[in-house]
Amino acid sequence: MDLMEKIISLSKRRGFIFQSSEIYGGVEALWDYGPLGSLLKNNIKEEWIKRFVQSYDSVVLIDGTVLMHPNVWKASGHLEHFTDPLVECKNCHSRFRVDHMADGRFAGQGKAKTKNQCPQCGGKDFTSAKQFNLMFKTFLGPVEDEAHITYLRPETAQSMFTNFKQVQEAMRLKIPFGIAQIGRCFRNEITTGNFTFRTREFDIAEIEYFVKPGEDEKWFDFWVDEWERFFLDLGLKKENLRRYEHPKEALSHYSKRTIDIEYKFPFGWSELAGIANRTNFDLSQHSKMSSKDLSYFDEETSKSYTPYVIEPTLGIERLLLALLVDAYQEIKGGRTTTTKAAKEVEVVLKLDKKIAPIKMAVVPLVKNKPELVKKAKEVYEILKSHFMCQYDEVDSIGRRYRRQDEIGTPFAITIDFETLEKDDVTIRDRDTMEQERVKINDLVGVLKNQLSQNL
Amino acid sequence: MDLMEKIISLSKRRGFIFQSSEIYGGVEALWDYGPLGSLLKNNIKEEWIKRFVQSYDSVVLIDGTVLMHPNVWKASGHLEHFTDPLVECKNCHSRFRVDHMADGRFAGQGKAKTKNQCPQCGGKDFTSAKQFNLMFKTFLGPVEDEAHITYLRPETAQSMFTNFKQVQEAMRLKIPFGIAQIGRCFRNEITTGNFTFRTREFDIAEIEYFVKPGEDEKWFDFWVDEWERFFLDLGLKKENLRRYEHPKEALSHYSKRTIDIEYKFPFGWSELAGIANRTNFDLSQHSKMSSKDLSYFDEETSKSYTPYVIEPTLGIERLLLALLVDAYQEIKGGRTTTTKAAKEVEVVLKLDKKIAPIKMAVVPLVKNKPELVKKAKEVYEILKSHFMCQYDEVDSIGRRYRRQDEIGTPFAITIDFETLEKDDVTIRDRDTMEQERVKINDLVGVLKNQLSQNL
Repeated sequence: MDLMEKIISLSKRRGFIFQSSEIYGGVEALWDYGPLGSLLKNNIKEEWIKRFVQSYDSVVLIDGTVLMHPNVWKASGHLEHFTDPLVECKNCHSRFRVDHMADGRFAGQGKAKTKNQCPQCGGKDFTSAKQFNLMFKTFLGPVEDEAHITYLRPETAQSMFTNFKQVQEAMRLKIPFGIAQIGRCFRNEITTGNFTFRTREFDIAEIEYFVKPGEDEKWFDFWVDEWERFFLDLGLKKENLRRYEHPKEALSHYSKRTIDIEYKFPFGWSELAGIANRTNFDLSQHSKMSSKDLSYFDEETSKSYTPYVIEPTLGIERLLLALLVDAYQEIKGGRTTTTKAAKEVEVVLKLDKKIAPIKMAVVPLVKNKPELVKKAKEVYEILKSHFMCQYDEVDSIGRRYRRQDEIGTPFAITIDFETLEKDDVTIRDRDTMEQERVKINDLVGVLKNQLSQNL
Repeated sequence: MDLMEKIISLSKRRGFIFQSSEIYGGVEALWDYGPLGSLLKNNIKEEWIKRFVQSYDSVVLIDGTVLMHPNVWKASGHLEHFTDPLVECKNCHSRFRVDHMADGRFAGQGKAKTKNQCPQCGGKDFTSAKQFNLMFKTFLGPVEDEAHITYLRPETAQSMFTNFKQVQEAMRLKIPFGIAQIGRCFRNEITTGNFTFRTREFDIAEIEYFVKPGEDEKWFDFWVDEWERFFLDLGLKKENLRRYEHPKEALSHYSKRTIDIEYKFPFGWSELAGIANRTNFDLSQHSKMSSKDLSYFDEETSKSYTPYVIEPTLGIERLLLALLVDAYQEIKGGRTTTTKAAKEVEVVLKLDKKIAPIKMAVVPLVKNKPELVKKAKEVYEILKSHFMCQYDEVDSIGRRYRRQDEIGTPFAITIDFETLEKDDVTIRDRDTMEQERVKINDLVGVLKNQLSQNL
């Protein structure tokens, strides 16, 4: 098994990620996040909000709708430009993106392994390319005609632009300031694949940072650094990150400059996040189309201008996948002294404590001693009102530790016979495997400290 | 202005809730959550997860996709039954739900004010009723034909059913256990209205609680109580909540019994949440349609059965609206001693501290003393790494307190001249207006305590 297969298998077996509608054979490029995956996802989002909203003076959060007025997508250029060139194999009628059939620059973006040959049937005869819009279409109200078409948002950015004025006024914000959002986005991708890397439904976290024209390049550089630092602080290894600058001719229709932050996935260097200088394109377009003034009045100069926008953006599920890959470690020959384990490969998911889905497991040394089990359950009751934790009494203690190591649980709280005498427990550290005895009365405080140490 | 108008006005003015795509005239029944609204929404979700996932031994979270395999909606009965009877006014061609035109039992569900008379033009001649499906339709892939139709989920429940087996096995769960989810849902409502009460896009929080057949009625009662207690613990007044039992003939196609928890909104008693006994309907249907075994093997009896499901469900935005309404208080004549304020009406939003969007404001007594401002900014720097807080130096101190009272901020941290000498600040309590002096060194600890006191 290669690394990706191991990650996919672990994800399914331990409840991180399942195929959506799996009982019906699944739907291509749709994934559900299971009990551990959904907690991990929530923790990533929470860290992002703490980092970029709570800790910033001038970045505020919003939560906009997926469905918007259809004019939004006319103004933004998505109706015209958010397309992929599509060809059909004349033999088997499979459809492909032209730009993914030739050698693309994005190794991870699903380029076909063979050139100009149908990956389905080997055919070499294709229709000429047609532009296919990647936005999912739907109808508002009961009438299915042109007038009632709208789209599922392919990015959260647009509601930050349409709400620019309302947010700025309600919050009395002065430029530079940012509007941040995490939300579900949808893209009707033709070429999908690499597990959760390219999917039809995903959560984007992005900031539209409004700046004075002329100061945009400075802020662009600022946000590239900030964005990368966030990934490093969540634990991604520096050597697995690199920057890729889009060549001028490949820039999106709204962008003056774009830098991707790429991660070294097992399937190659691929886009994890991006920073774009969207200039005043979106606000100008919306202002034109809506006939509303979306300029900003600068009190210092008494002049109005349409702000430039720097947009750092990231895919939550891509980050989650990168974090899983980066944290995955196999220890051959075993790192515990249990004889049986010594012959096995032990997996440790070295997730940063901040984002680990389960913070601690409460484990009685054995399950056939009622006093131990009773005490362990008491400790579990105390801890679960403070932390996301699990109680586990099934199998040998060594197996239980390894089960927790595999899902990245930072601590195991063991209740042993000494506990009954001294009212203390051991805290086992996932990474060092060291065990520290702590009084039950001090336990919550000690764990809170240890969990926030690396914040 | 009546209470609803005041809430709508406050929501817009202070950044809780904006109309989606407002610059384009808005889209009916779509609302964006602004800086304060999105934080409030997040806090409600967090409390719900703490309460029903973290604190429960046997309820796990998932995060499923909005788009699913179309067979899901065949099996669930939504394709056939999730419809409203629709009539069209022959004069002006407006469309209405038949059941909302007559006197309905749900005061809040937008029933027409006049009987059998078109609310748009007064016409009295209507087409006969047609069944209109409330699910938004879209197409997976580039071909827009019957074979590629799918729907935007109108409830999160179905992915808990399709993942039932995977979740149970991965997490080694034993019945009774629950799968919980918070997620975006979509309904193509014909009759909308009452601000954010009936909308086309909203977040549902629900639990599918799997139980042994025969124990379903006991667990139904359990969840009705649990659900109501959650609302009370978030601060809703007991007298504003009541239970409504659906008559047998009005039950959904999957339900054996349903109780709504209604809230006394300004527009009348209306559904805030519900608890349904979905029996084994969904699992049986999915098992039939997918030919997959979705039964549960009971180790104690060595027999398999298809679990019954109790489903407590709530609309996050409805709860948010109820919380705003419930917390809104006007104090006439003023409660502060500021002379100017005494003539005004003061608004205090008595949100529970747990969910208040901004936990504290840092305010220097005056802004024209650089030492005070410098000190205040230092305190703000300390606090914002722990709490969601604001810094405010604009206008008189009294106005600033009232501005924070109006958005429900529990504490104001005032930096005055004494601060410069004694390194302490005052903590002003929103509800009692009492001020307590606390050393800056102790501030984080004291505030953490006060914020968790009512957890």
